[in-house]
Amino acid sequence: MKTPSRRKFIASAAGLAAVTTLSPATAMVAEEKVIAHQVYFWLKNPASSEDRAQLIRGLKTLQKIESVRKLLIGVVAATDKRPVVDDSWGVSALTLFSDIAGEAAYQVHPIHLAFVKDYSHLWSKVVVYDSSEV
Amino acid sequence: MKTPSRRKFIASAAGLAAVTTLSPATAMVAEEKVIAHQVYFWLKNPASSEDRAQLIRGLKTLQKIESVRKLLIGVVAATDKRPVVDDSWGVSALTLFSDIAGEAAYQVHPIHLAFVKDYSHLWSKVVVYDSSEV
Repeated sequence: MKTPSRRKFIASAAGLAAVTTLSPATAMVAEEKVIAHQVYFWLKNPASSEDRAQLIRGLKTLQKIESVRKLLIGVVAATDKRPVVDDSWGVSALTLFSDIAGEAAYQVHPIHLAFVKDYSHLWSKVVVYDSSEV
Repeated sequence: MKTPSRRKFIASAAGLAAVTTLSPATAMVAEEKVIAHQVYFWLKNPASSEDRAQLIRGLKTLQKIESVRKLLIGVVAATDKRPVVDDSWGVSALTLFSDIAGEAAYQVHPIHLAFVKDYSHLWSKVVVYDSSEV
């Protein structure tokens, strides 16, 4: 019994070693080029923390869309305000995709369409920047 | 000779297995909240691919700043152009930090100051969005 069990373990371990040496998950993520879809929302009621929380809750639903590799939701950071810093917005959402097709699928996905339908009354303006990693 | 070698390999493999099961690097990164410093550059000569490549080379030097956790340099992606999409810029740089102190250290770092000194002649406008992940 011992020998096959150990052999199996060694084979499995060798597989892990190969993965670790040749392509750790972090290195794979870092090396794959992404499409970044960055959205800034200006709230209709910028003073309403409830509206802001509601929009953030809505944005979190987008995480379930299959082509979303990473979703990073933010608010204005307390960094030093140089003149070039735009801090007039209320909520940001950075979504990473593996490719243009993933971003296109996201745009027409039922979860995304439901998000726009259910939460767009909260914002007065949206600006989108879509970038392709070089 | 064979036994210690195999034992060593098994111990090493067990270590790998534990790392893989309990705390993959990717999961750790995903759970830590970040400060995202997103910069969009408008080139003085938008038609010059050489200027664009030069700015990208300059931005890559920022990777060496100790507090930079991730640097994602991009150009306008070929996504569907809805009216909310701003595609008038030339190069984007998304930098992630662990905290506000990391972003502040980056701003005054000699490598960042040298980048501004050596490459700012290439751009006509910069817009910065600093966000704090929620």
